Amino acid sequence: MEATKQQQELSNLIDDKLAELNLPQEPSLLYDPVRYTLSLAGKRVRPYLTLVGCGVCGGDIEEAIPAALSIELLHNFTLLHDDIMDRAHTRRGEPSVYKKWDSNTAILSGDAMYAKAFKQLQYYGREADYSKQTYSLILDLFLDSAERVCEGQAYDLMFEKDYDVSIDQYLQMIEGKTAALISGAFAMGGAVARADEKWIRELQFIGRKVGIAFQIQDDLLDAVADPKKFGKKKGGDIVEGKKTYLTLLALQRSEEQTNRKLVKLLTSTENSEEEIAEVISIFESLDVFSDTKNAIKYHYQEAIDHLDTFDNSQYKKGITEFLNRLISRKY
Amino acid sequence: MEATKQQQELSNLIDDKLAELNLPQEPSLLYDPVRYTLSLAGKRVRPYLTLVGCGVCGGDIEEAIPAALSIELLHNFTLLHDDIMDRAHTRRGEPSVYKKWDSNTAILSGDAMYAKAFKQLQYYGREADYSKQTYSLILDLFLDSAERVCEGQAYDLMFEKDYDVSIDQYLQMIEGKTAALISGAFAMGGAVARADEKWIRELQFIGRKVGIAFQIQDDLLDAVADPKKFGKKKGGDIVEGKKTYLTLLALQRSEEQTNRKLVKLLTSTENSEEEIAEVISIFESLDVFSDTKNAIKYHYQEAIDHLDTFDNSQYKKGITEFLNRLISRKY
Repeated sequence: MEATKQQQELSNLIDDKLAELNLPQEPSLLYDPVRYTLSLAGKRVRPYLTLVGCGVCGGDIEEAIPAALSIELLHNFTLLHDDIMDRAHTRRGEPSVYKKWDSNTAILSGDAMYAKAFKQLQYYGREADYSKQTYSLILDLFLDSAERVCEGQAYDLMFEKDYDVSIDQYLQMIEGKTAALISGAFAMGGAVARADEKWIRELQFIGRKVGIAFQIQDDLLDAVADPKKFGKKKGGDIVEGKKTYLTLLALQRSEEQTNRKLVKLLTSTENSEEEIAEVISIFESLDVFSDTKNAIKYHYQEAIDHLDTFDNSQYKKGITEFLNRLISRKY
Repeated sequence: MEATKQQQELSNLIDDKLAELNLPQEPSLLYDPVRYTLSLAGKRVRPYLTLVGCGVCGGDIEEAIPAALSIELLHNFTLLHDDIMDRAHTRRGEPSVYKKWDSNTAILSGDAMYAKAFKQLQYYGREADYSKQTYSLILDLFLDSAERVCEGQAYDLMFEKDYDVSIDQYLQMIEGKTAALISGAFAMGGAVARADEKWIRELQFIGRKVGIAFQIQDDLLDAVADPKKFGKKKGGDIVEGKKTYLTLLALQRSEEQTNRKLVKLLTSTENSEEEIAEVISIFESLDVFSDTKNAIKYHYQEAIDHLDTFDNSQYKKGITEFLNRLISRKY
């Protein structure tokens, strides 16, 4: 998905600020992997949302930069540790820290990045412009996200061995794993702008909805997107037997025989192209694709409706454009 | 080492408060290992120091409980991750989380414990009795410890492959790995008591000295203590070829032939009892034991001298007793 103009400008700003972090040189085993991770070209969606979350509440987005950096550092910390757990060899097209160094280095540099993320928020502790209440709220929102990301990842690991996962459990998992950080990022922007609690709740809600819609969309694109553009092998989730919105819907809807076949195909360690096509054809026969598209539309629409309650501004316009791009993304 | 009466009472208090933490039941994969870790009988030295650090500055130690819990949670987070890095199968006489569950579970439940540690400190954000400045200072001290522990562990991993480590580099490593948390724990107590910056600096200094002395003492006891009481095999560090105060002093002082022999014995993956005895005899010939004892005495004495500057109180008396027990510990 191509970035909107506002998104591009603000993610460039985040890149510049990340480059200015001035991380220590030593111990190199700790900070080289942190520098390496931050140098990989990320889309910076979460810190972008912090900045525009501040802007849409009438705040000065410059003031939201430390919060935005803290969110990007927290996100990268989760990626470092997730790559170990998933044994992922690549990240953003480059070797993961886990692969380039080793598991111990990825654990430890992730831990260091976590502390650096928190340290960014000490800006609001030092600056007299922020009340103790605002400072504490920013930390609360951050900590809540950090904790819920761990919970989501734990559910994901637990579901790996369990074929009796409901759609509700799946939603709970992605609310943690994907939506909590997006929701927290957006809401922290509002907190920096000293927005009323009501608006911060709205930002949380919108962020949660965007996160859920985005993750379900990812599940869908894994099965239908052009693999060249999406950057992943078509049906990768099917091969890996991942619990996605699509597989869970299909498992829930299928009758005994089809259900057994699905479980067999999803649990086998390798799948031929024919087998992937067979799973996709089962999805089609059970209206999985159309209902998944409806779910995505529903969650995005909720986000858009709630965004509508904010006053008009360049940031509201920018976020709307960003959401519309997300909705129509094909990869 | 047997606990002093005050230490025992306060560590019982910490145990009670840890049991009351009310961690969520789900996701069980995340919180069962956290509960398990906290249920293992720890000595609770660090949270004890937070409480008495508050007490010696004239504060109400009840108020320091959240800070003390945050330090114990942070300490346990580091143990969870360290056990993965060291492939340690046991912790406090029981299977480590890494062994009882697996590496992924230990990474993730460690991460969750880190967030829980921070969350404890939000007490000082909510309570009106604490100024923004005090709240921010408590977080600064905590974050500084968290970061320096990672740095110390990184140096430790880097030194594993390096035989050209100086005593200064070793001290820098243990200042992070061991002393930073003890120093931070003690100083956070002072911050909770709203002590002047001068006193907080004193607590930091004392904590650092105690941490350094304690770690060098651990290195010494590994070579000389009664293995039954110390709970570790005699000369374990020699067998593992660890960079300890003793080995580094010996390597630094030995002439070419002895140096080569030492490196050979330390790098070999297994050592007979005779070989361990040989290393110990080299230590003796190079005055390693007596000079290590002097170093331990020096750092503890500095701690005691600085404690002397505080007003007399039951806490000062308690800490003095605690330090004297530490100094004379034989295991």
